[in-house]
Amino acid sequence: MTNKKLGEQTAALSSPPSFVSWANTAGKKEGEGPLSSHFDSICQDDTFGEDSWEKSECAMQKQSMSLALEKLGTTAQSLDWLFAGDLLNQCVSASFAARDQNIPFFGLYGACSTMGEGLALASLTLDGGFGRCAGVVASSHFCSAERQYRSPLEYGGQRPPTAQWTVTGAGAVILVSGGTGPYITHVTPGKIIDKGVTDTNNMGAAMAAAAYDTIKVHLQDTGQTPQDYDLIVTGDLGRLGSEILEELFRQDGMELISNHTDCGLLIFDTEQQDVHCGGSGCGCAASVLTGYLLNGIKQGTWKRILFCPTGALHSPTTAFQGESIPGICHAITISVSR
Amino acid sequence: MTNKKLGEQTAALSSPPSFVSWANTAGKKEGEGPLSSHFDSICQDDTFGEDSWEKSECAMQKQSMSLALEKLGTTAQSLDWLFAGDLLNQCVSASFAARDQNIPFFGLYGACSTMGEGLALASLTLDGGFGRCAGVVASSHFCSAERQYRSPLEYGGQRPPTAQWTVTGAGAVILVSGGTGPYITHVTPGKIIDKGVTDTNNMGAAMAAAAYDTIKVHLQDTGQTPQDYDLIVTGDLGRLGSEILEELFRQDGMELISNHTDCGLLIFDTEQQDVHCGGSGCGCAASVLTGYLLNGIKQGTWKRILFCPTGALHSPTTAFQGESIPGICHAITISVSR
Repeated sequence: MTNKKLGEQTAALSSPPSFVSWANTAGKKEGEGPLSSHFDSICQDDTFGEDSWEKSECAMQKQSMSLALEKLGTTAQSLDWLFAGDLLNQCVSASFAARDQNIPFFGLYGACSTMGEGLALASLTLDGGFGRCAGVVASSHFCSAERQYRSPLEYGGQRPPTAQWTVTGAGAVILVSGGTGPYITHVTPGKIIDKGVTDTNNMGAAMAAAAYDTIKVHLQDTGQTPQDYDLIVTGDLGRLGSEILEELFRQDGMELISNHTDCGLLIFDTEQQDVHCGGSGCGCAASVLTGYLLNGIKQGTWKRILFCPTGALHSPTTAFQGESIPGICHAITISVSR
Repeated sequence: MTNKKLGEQTAALSSPPSFVSWANTAGKKEGEGPLSSHFDSICQDDTFGEDSWEKSECAMQKQSMSLALEKLGTTAQSLDWLFAGDLLNQCVSASFAARDQNIPFFGLYGACSTMGEGLALASLTLDGGFGRCAGVVASSHFCSAERQYRSPLEYGGQRPPTAQWTVTGAGAVILVSGGTGPYITHVTPGKIIDKGVTDTNNMGAAMAAAAYDTIKVHLQDTGQTPQDYDLIVTGDLGRLGSEILEELFRQDGMELISNHTDCGLLIFDTEQQDVHCGGSGCGCAASVLTGYLLNGIKQGTWKRILFCPTGALHSPTTAFQGESIPGICHAITISVSR
């Protein structure tokens, strides 16, 4: 059997699957930001008609996947597998959203990198010849995340300048084997990188080293340079994390600035929307991918993107116990040609 | 490309990967149970030398994987991918155990079914031609689970007769593509099944319907009967869940009793060890697989096993909000022949 692993940690897909449909759901604040025209559904009160924030987040996952299936004119029954995750304890948004869908289910925990982890595993599964169609969905909700990771909204906690704002959003994609693109041609699943950052209000810094590691390995494995991509888009490093990433590459003599951006910087107007360093959360990379990025590829704005969602794999318990924050980043090559 | 999906939801591996090494770590109570001779390492005080239960659980994952690698005479660097998970919020045992290992990492959340989910994804990845060697590890710890899901140990909470006892244990396996067996020949990833059970002290009942669904679909997809397996071993249904599962099959005119057992019933002496309905937790199926079951196959006790870890995908928050408990079960065919 041919080994389709390339270099240190990249999977080179021999029959790249295509994005055949995608959709997203966003909250009010996200709907007021620069990407508002790229959201399929914007809820005006963030409850999504539910009586708890956890149920609201679950409703967003359901709605995003329903919209993606609807655009394709099909139902959940056409999916062979579903890959899903979120930030909540025991990933309950994902599990509860999927319980009526009757599809074989893989629950993932990759923190804010979940959409990348899901795309990686779904495309490896389809490329391996297992089924024809897979769904990937991820979400986050500002209110469920705040009360779980920090404090209930009613406390009105103050946020330091390095803090990021958890995106209220969900994104769903449907991948098919073969198809007409845009394709996933390469996948570089990330290693866990922990450089000892302990400040949970500075996740960008904690994740930047993971993004640097994965992107660097990806470029080495595939023999590319940053300029071979129209866009290298990290997940949610925010302003500070992005600066650290660009500086790390600069030290290697590589210029990332001209074609690097970050979902956390794209989704909000960081000057006007009081989000400090930018957006974060599984829903950040997921909703930016399923709106701005895939729409842009479809419209011909970019031909080849390196999509690199990042995650901080800590918990409130590990933070209380003085542990540092392990980061991860998965890189996915999305291209109009195989 | 050939579609290697069989029937409704089964993946038929064309180049079945082999279990090439396995190891486990268990707590004191587990070490006093009927499977004590199958544990590679038994800790006498359950702290594993750490100062928090979360760190103890993390130490168990690390130790199990180290032992599995040691038996093979290799290091983590020989692994192409690592699939890992646990029950803790944000799956921190898995992430923190992996942060020094420098291996591309996939974090999973499948509750107590995690070892099954990991084996499924690792074997699909290897069968697809991506890399040669993958690790899978899962764990649970009675003390970290009690304080997260129920109440701190110091409260001395009473347990109803339907309750199960979270296993303090971890299990790690190393799969290689090809090899000489035992092989993973088929994988049936489960759907989420929720029959409305809301009693978090009766997880066996909540998960039994998921086990029934997955095993039934697996048998249909592969054209087998229960008697085609030397053993059908569910994850942690415990006594009550096992009875429900057997009754559900009986209603279909199928006899499961003679060759059905459950990891939660195997790991403890339920009469003598005060564990009520039996063991549970990711570490239950993981440590029984990596001891009793794989050792038994190696020794010739069984030739073909259907390994079916089960999981309850709720959280304390969803329980407080009155939600029922979604269950899942992944079925993995382990066979000495391809």
